[in-house]
Amino acid sequence: MLDRGLVAHVAFLDGDDPICIPMLYARDGDRIYIHGSTASRAVRALAAGAPACVTVTIVDALVLARSAFEHSANYDSVMAFGTFAAVEDDAERLRAFEAFTEKLLPGRWSEVRQPNAKELKATEILAMEIDDASVKMRAGPPDDDDSVDAELETWAGIVPIISSYGAPEASPGLRAGIPLSPSVRRLLTLRAPPG
Amino acid sequence: MLDRGLVAHVAFLDGDDPICIPMLYARDGDRIYIHGSTASRAVRALAAGAPACVTVTIVDALVLARSAFEHSANYDSVMAFGTFAAVEDDAERLRAFEAFTEKLLPGRWSEVRQPNAKELKATEILAMEIDDASVKMRAGPPDDDDSVDAELETWAGIVPIISSYGAPEASPGLRAGIPLSPSVRRLLTLRAPPG
Repeated sequence: MLDRGLVAHVAFLDGDDPICIPMLYARDGDRIYIHGSTASRAVRALAAGAPACVTVTIVDALVLARSAFEHSANYDSVMAFGTFAAVEDDAERLRAFEAFTEKLLPGRWSEVRQPNAKELKATEILAMEIDDASVKMRAGPPDDDDSVDAELETWAGIVPIISSYGAPEASPGLRAGIPLSPSVRRLLTLRAPPG
Repeated sequence: MLDRGLVAHVAFLDGDDPICIPMLYARDGDRIYIHGSTASRAVRALAAGAPACVTVTIVDALVLARSAFEHSANYDSVMAFGTFAAVEDDAERLRAFEAFTEKLLPGRWSEVRQPNAKELKATEILAMEIDDASVKMRAGPPDDDDSVDAELETWAGIVPIISSYGAPEASPGLRAGIPLSPSVRRLLTLRAPPG
């Protein structure tokens, strides 16, 4: 599930207040990597060892019942708990960069310029060992097929929500004659992760 | 933005630990409504007045640069801060139910059986006045059009992520001859909220 999502919601405490921010992430085994500017307040709070909850949710469908009460959504969600720490090892930092790039777009890492020393220095990479995790999900049709509500004249069922990639839009500064990268051409044959 | 999303990530403190859970929600003016079983631990913690952060994120596109460092995603995100309290007023509880149903599927409320007393009793409805809110977003092409990296032979641009509705799937228990509801037929002409 962590591999299906694109964005994680990372919750932590900043002073007394809970904060929940969307972040790109990558997984390697039982470690979750996130990254951000060394100037970011969230990154500094997390690097200082604030306990965190990393939640990834994928919504699959609207669930439409005969009664308002049974309306819902089908989804998969995982909450991973742990504590982030800054990754200091240069080789691991580079591997994490590769994981971020490959998660966004498989095959992209070998097509692009890799991070230089200045970029590596400006970026804090944080890793969290997953101490504990919990899954929440709903699947299947609405729950009132076997109730008296099934006698009503109301249509009931699910409506899938499907993510897909649209046509790539070249950057305004892209020089003429540069073709789509192989990674992008492959991507367009796939279903997108949910936005 | 709160009206564009389908699922919010709600962060709060349970004991000493931050928790971040996905929830359906609705907005009415400056109030955010959520709901859940009266038996839910999260609902009880929130009803007890735990400070909360409600985050809604919509991812619009992959951002593909010439350098790994400039890879990103385009997104809109809003974080709303406040404290939930249980809604006790019956008329407001019913209006909140209507808001949940209409947010999931506009036009649905008038097509379905409304909540009865037992259902209203089994459901805790919580409202949060938005004390403070903060927006995070990224839009536009990658940031390396004006860098030396633009001399590289690598394609750069964005790939939109598009959500749409799939074909409705009737509930196995739907009686023969019941047509799609008007709300569902209208829905299929729209773009879906991001899953």
